[in-house]
Amino acid sequence: MGESLRLNFAINKQLTYFIIMEKPYVLGLDMGGTNSVLGIVDARGHVLARTSIKTQAYAKIEDYVNALHEEALKIIEPVGGIEMFRGIGAGAPNANYYSGNIEFAANLPWKGIVPFAELMSAKFGIPCRITNDANAAAMGEMTYGAARGMKNFIMITLGTGVGSGIVIDGKVVYGHDGFAGELGHTKIIRGENARLCGCGHKGCLEAYASATGVARTAREIVMNTNEPTLLRNLEPESITSKDVFDAAEQGDEVAKRIFDETGKMLGQKFADFVAFSAPEAIILFGGMTKCGHYILDPIVKTMNEDVLPIWQNKVKVMFSDLKEADAAVLGASALAWGE
Amino acid sequence: MGESLRLNFAINKQLTYFIIMEKPYVLGLDMGGTNSVLGIVDARGHVLARTSIKTQAYAKIEDYVNALHEEALKIIEPVGGIEMFRGIGAGAPNANYYSGNIEFAANLPWKGIVPFAELMSAKFGIPCRITNDANAAAMGEMTYGAARGMKNFIMITLGTGVGSGIVIDGKVVYGHDGFAGELGHTKIIRGENARLCGCGHKGCLEAYASATGVARTAREIVMNTNEPTLLRNLEPESITSKDVFDAAEQGDEVAKRIFDETGKMLGQKFADFVAFSAPEAIILFGGMTKCGHYILDPIVKTMNEDVLPIWQNKVKVMFSDLKEADAAVLGASALAWGE
Repeated sequence: MGESLRLNFAINKQLTYFIIMEKPYVLGLDMGGTNSVLGIVDARGHVLARTSIKTQAYAKIEDYVNALHEEALKIIEPVGGIEMFRGIGAGAPNANYYSGNIEFAANLPWKGIVPFAELMSAKFGIPCRITNDANAAAMGEMTYGAARGMKNFIMITLGTGVGSGIVIDGKVVYGHDGFAGELGHTKIIRGENARLCGCGHKGCLEAYASATGVARTAREIVMNTNEPTLLRNLEPESITSKDVFDAAEQGDEVAKRIFDETGKMLGQKFADFVAFSAPEAIILFGGMTKCGHYILDPIVKTMNEDVLPIWQNKVKVMFSDLKEADAAVLGASALAWGE
Repeated sequence: MGESLRLNFAINKQLTYFIIMEKPYVLGLDMGGTNSVLGIVDARGHVLARTSIKTQAYAKIEDYVNALHEEALKIIEPVGGIEMFRGIGAGAPNANYYSGNIEFAANLPWKGIVPFAELMSAKFGIPCRITNDANAAAMGEMTYGAARGMKNFIMITLGTGVGSGIVIDGKVVYGHDGFAGELGHTKIIRGENARLCGCGHKGCLEAYASATGVARTAREIVMNTNEPTLLRNLEPESITSKDVFDAAEQGDEVAKRIFDETGKMLGQKFADFVAFSAPEAIILFGGMTKCGHYILDPIVKTMNEDVLPIWQNKVKVMFSDLKEADAAVLGASALAWGE
């Protein structure tokens, strides 16, 4: 190597160091249907500060971005101002990684196509990248959580809906158009009597196996049958998946059966997903994971019954080990470090 | 750049050129349950010569490899001998890309785990890489066929079985263990009455939507109903998917319904696959594609009814445009050029 080349390398290294040191933080935004949580994250994955606004309080996207910016400044200024930030990574429903748009999100106040990354970048003055919440969770899990060291896994979020983030060869799968990983909208029940999903189709996994789906199953049993169950002590419309868990903990057979049947559905679909990408693990995240073995046991049993012999008892099914709020913010923030 | 570095680059370039020119060919092996076709392929994807042996004629894998080698020499010698070959790429059932083993292949004479790449490499004296036949077909399609220029597509082979090769970001998906892409063994029918698949499970897509599955559907209708159909003129056990096509061409309603129902099943599963990896296209290959619009129309209709609105009428479903024999040999051969 010539002397001038050697010098060049030394300068480049110094320059890289300088740039990273100059901008030691990123912002991670977890935009949910209810709350939007914004956190300051450093290169080691520590959430140094966080703040939040109500997603639904802003009928116009510009007002939302303004409010978020105003709130953000309160945590940004104490660490040295926006000059210290390399970029913003956001996890949001129906977010398109390629275009930077949020497109036709059913659970957000803004209809149609919203150029979210562009608006954020213009307001904050730093680059913004976005992806959907489940992909962000997968990145968080891969960088800091249960999937550390894994190159092939599937993240399934069991919350209001059923989301998914698919990682193959260490990369989140975005597909041809940026919308890959909508496993909640694969079908588990066929026919006219299948449940209507928020997407307009019938029989989607999301309509049954989300926390909302479990609550709906419980309500249907309470309202349409005479089976004895502790869940009858509750107002049907108020029943949540947490209530079903509490009932199961008290030995309620109906509650346990609800988890068995929901877990069986998830296990059947997980077997299909394994046939697709042969992951090392399927990692569960979101409210339903609080239901522990009640939901995990039937998933694992059914999945292993359904997969080809080559995969029997080989694919791990595990819960995320990140705190729920942190995972989404950390995962989203990972986008902002760039490639 | 220093003078010595410049010289170094020039020498390297010359050397690379020299190595490629020294070994201008690869061997591509398409190992099927019945025939094994071996072809000589050049860097431009021309199949210069081919030969074949009967896969089932060799109870021992060593005898198969010896017979293949003996047959191969007849086409290798005329082009200058094995020194002209860079390597062997093979597409085979249950072939593991990572390990080089063929593992528990139901339709091959050799049971258990067969170290096929190792045996081939030792016998031929050049490196051998293997993958399953559907992945090989996907590589052939991407390099020379309908998927040229595509980075995200799914290859579905509809022959004796239903195979699949999944390409994401320009790479075949192998997964954690090398066995990804077994979409023929995702479930389309649930319950005790679902058809038994060769894999031992019930209700796999392969049991219904392969060429064999279509023939079975036809036989069941002939034997279990009194519906008038041209298919009744045939010996039930001898009916093939080609016979069902011929009957459809003559306006036979039962034959058309068989394709409608089979296409509907494929369309339903394709919608699930789209939700997974958001491909630009799904490319169909194998015997069933000869049934043309009878099978394609219901697939496209059902898939578009079932996908999320973001994908409606956006994902292409198309037939391979490679000759069937060539595609597998070409695809397999692509493995041998290395990365």
